[in-house]
Amino acid sequence: MTDEPWMRGLHTDTGYLLHRIGLRAGSLFNSALEQHGLRLRHYALLRYLATAEGVRQREISDRLGYDPSAVVGLVDDLQRLGLAERRPDPGDRRNRIVVLTRAGRDLLRDSDHDAARVTEQLLEPLGEEERRQLQRLLLRVAGLDPA
Amino acid sequence: MTDEPWMRGLHTDTGYLLHRIGLRAGSLFNSALEQHGLRLRHYALLRYLATAEGVRQREISDRLGYDPSAVVGLVDDLQRLGLAERRPDPGDRRNRIVVLTRAGRDLLRDSDHDAARVTEQLLEPLGEEERRQLQRLLLRVAGLDPA
Repeated sequence: MTDEPWMRGLHTDTGYLLHRIGLRAGSLFNSALEQHGLRLRHYALLRYLATAEGVRQREISDRLGYDPSAVVGLVDDLQRLGLAERRPDPGDRRNRIVVLTRAGRDLLRDSDHDAARVTEQLLEPLGEEERRQLQRLLLRVAGLDPA
Repeated sequence: MTDEPWMRGLHTDTGYLLHRIGLRAGSLFNSALEQHGLRLRHYALLRYLATAEGVRQREISDRLGYDPSAVVGLVDDLQRLGLAERRPDPGDRRNRIVVLTRAGRDLLRDSDHDAARVTEQLLEPLGEEERRQLQRLLLRVAGLDPA
């Protein structure tokens, strides 16, 4: 693609380049997740639920940056697929929390392989050491220092 | 954000990390472009038009990865704002091409400063040498070798 004039402007603009590559990553994820009847946002939500004991919908919306109304629909979808469920919040019975089901955990494990394939596809031009370097830099950009 | 459990899973998954950072870049761009009455897709289209003498709508859709029907709407928007216009294709009068107007070029120059600010904001945690490193790696990922 080196000769594409429209890409030439990207040489000096890392922010826009990150956006374009992020879109490509998202579209690769969407293709990989199709077999599970999921879209990227469902996957992001499943991943988030997997790291918590049970979360409120508002928290999901805050952390993933999706509209609260969109989150309701996403949770509905996951519940219909048996991948997550709403339960009363043990800390405050007036609230409900969202938790991953066993089936949700299984699917997440299966789709982890898909995620690895997406990363592999995306980073194909890079060698091992370059991949580690990129990962380190991206974690810094995300405000996460490498462990 | 180091302690966010939902981010922890990202440590091993560069593809997903790229997607999340790409979303953040997109949302910063959208905020920066609001003052011009533009969304990120308009901006991407303007940037593309700036690198070509005049392009067909189908080509735009191919290169930017947007639906052909979405491209028609985007070009309509730019035309209404006086930033681009449709002209007969000199090479084939049955076709029309899309070209940037003078006002489109001016706006693009103005918004280049916004783009630089977005990049600055996004890469704030990195030093100069790390930014160059990241840019080099991202160009490789995009299939563009550094000039």
